Amino acid sequence: MTTLKQELNDTFQELISTANDEELHVLSSMLKGLNDKKEQKYATYLSALTQIQTRFLDNGDYEVVLPIQPLINNPLQMVHGGITATLLDTAMGSMINRILPEDKAAVTAEMNVHYIKPGVGSNLKCVAHLAHKGNSLCVTEAKVYDNREKLVAMATGTFAVINRPQVK
Amino acid sequence: MTTLKQELNDTFQELISTANDEELHVLSSMLKGLNDKKEQKYATYLSALTQIQTRFLDNGDYEVVLPIQPLINNPLQMVHGGITATLLDTAMGSMINRILPEDKAAVTAEMNVHYIKPGVGSNLKCVAHLAHKGNSLCVTEAKVYDNREKLVAMATGTFAVINRPQVK
Amino acid sequence: MTTLKQELNDTFQELISTANDEELHVLSSMLKGLNDKKEQKYATYLSALTQIQTRFLDNGDYEVVLPIQPLINNPLQMVHGGITATLLDTAMGSMINRILPEDKAAVTAEMNVHYIKPGVGSNLKCVAHLAHKGNSLCVTEAKVYDNREKLVAMATGTFAVINRPQVK
Amino acid sequence: MTTLKQELNDTFQELISTANDEELHVLSSMLKGLNDKKEQKYATYLSALTQIQTRFLDNGDYEVVLPIQPLINNPLQMVHGGITATLLDTAMGSMINRILPEDKAAVTAEMNVHYIKPGVGSNLKCVAHLAHKGNSLCVTEAKVYDNREKLVAMATGTFAVINRPQVK
Repeated sequence: MTTLKQELNDTFQELISTANDEELHVLSSMLKGLNDKKEQKYATYLSALTQIQTRFLDNGDYEVVLPIQPLINNPLQMVHGGITATLLDTAMGSMINRILPEDKAAVTAEMNVHYIKPGVGSNLKCVAHLAHKGNSLCVTEAKVYDNREKLVAMATGTFAVINRPQVK
Repeated sequence: MTTLKQELNDTFQELISTANDEELHVLSSMLKGLNDKKEQKYATYLSALTQIQTRFLDNGDYEVVLPIQPLINNPLQMVHGGITATLLDTAMGSMINRILPEDKAAVTAEMNVHYIKPGVGSNLKCVAHLAHKGNSLCVTEAKVYDNREKLVAMATGTFAVINRPQVK
Repeated sequence: MTTLKQELNDTFQELISTANDEELHVLSSMLKGLNDKKEQKYATYLSALTQIQTRFLDNGDYEVVLPIQPLINNPLQMVHGGITATLLDTAMGSMINRILPEDKAAVTAEMNVHYIKPGVGSNLKCVAHLAHKGNSLCVTEAKVYDNREKLVAMATGTFAVINRPQVK
Repeated sequence: MTTLKQELNDTFQELISTANDEELHVLSSMLKGLNDKKEQKYATYLSALTQIQTRFLDNGDYEVVLPIQPLINNPLQMVHGGITATLLDTAMGSMINRILPEDKAAVTAEMNVHYIKPGVGSNLKCVAHLAHKGNSLCVTEAKVYDNREKLVAMATGTFAVINRPQVK
């Protein structure tokens, strides 16, 4: 075992022996997320950590479901506003990227988020809608609901269509 | 050791023995973040994971520095737009919360983010400025720079001032 | 006749004798607008000049129709973006003000407008929807269509609910 | 005199003989605005009516001054929010259009406006700043102050750079 690995193992053993229930939950999420990213179930660590689930709806809208867990909460025990913004950006951007031709990609040029209710409960569901598909700019809107279908946040976004960069 | 802890340990040992350099870095960040949160160096898991550093500047503006690491990147090896939004929201919101009287708190009502350049390099620095301090609403603006002082993103926000909730 | 009135009359006679068709149209709009405001058909000169028509739809949404005329166009012969913003703000704000109790009023705290297509044709129609009605903040969304039902612009707004000022 | 001109004259004479001081002021503004547009002192009726004055500042920012007059007020005797939005859009857009090469033009893709204080006093001054100049998108910010230098509103904007349309 290398020194780094040994240190990580020491830290892990110390953490796991002293962790409370919430911390064990967070630790479990982290390891599962890292594993899922390693197995390419997710494209980013952030989406793997947050365990989002995505699908197109029959009407062409795009849905992203985010389980609520201690890892993403703020000190008031509600979902961190930055995570809600991430959910909205991910939903709107992923929708466009799946609609565009393979050689094109969409990058967020601008996003406007309204926070309406605390994100609490078992999960948040984001539904994104393509309002305008232009050659160089797309405009989207999205809403986030809690598991009782209450409106938690809403956003609009402007996405620039670019030639897809080659990733090695 | 409980069954959960045993499972976590098994997952950890499997991960650490197969992880590449990037994954070891991410694993290290996760454990360090969890530890720092446990030791109350950070108020949220998200800020602990991202290891942000905050301070007031002499002119009253508020600065948040975010180290760039694989954990927060998107597949194009630049900082995930949701993380940049989190950085902006955190900087603007933290600034107001540290200015308000102890019995008051600020919650984000609305945020508008412009993405200008990819977030790459060693770190991102966000500087937040209080444009208007009202009794019930505050308006803020913030800019994110990379370590070469190039403008990466900018935002404005509307924050509602509420009576601070009692957290147990 | 006072000196001011005499000067206005001189200017008017000079204008009307040299005006081209477009200028006559604009002059006609101005006089009609001023007259309608004088007769209290409209609450503001701006709404009187632009001859907007408003109504609640059966589903509770609020509609404002704006006739397109030379007076409100930009040099490219499409509706001036500021007028489109005015239409959106008016629709969202009027809707809330008509829903609120008599002693309350709503003022725009923030508005985000997306411009999608040039505003051309016979008229623009704006439909505003109340997304969230809070005690101190309301969140709205609105879309503008041309007379072929093409999406021209869309917006969201944050409105602060205040005690209605006494107007003399 | 044509029938239309005769009707306009009848309306004008009726208006001028019954107008109160405010209405005479508005009528005067309208005729002056129409005259100035006719003499090509302004590119749009809206800018001519509102008598805005524009200039570049030494630091490259762009300033637009708007005199406050009854014509642009809302029923609460403060500047109509749509006019403030027009002022912001005009300042940000004009600045970019004067910086771009002759064959290019900028159109507003998105604008976010924060309303902070009522627009009252003798005039509003808007200062626009170019935050980012890209090949296809520009990002701007602007602030509106009253004549006591109090912040009245602020905005950011996204502008798309297009090939300048040929206007006949």
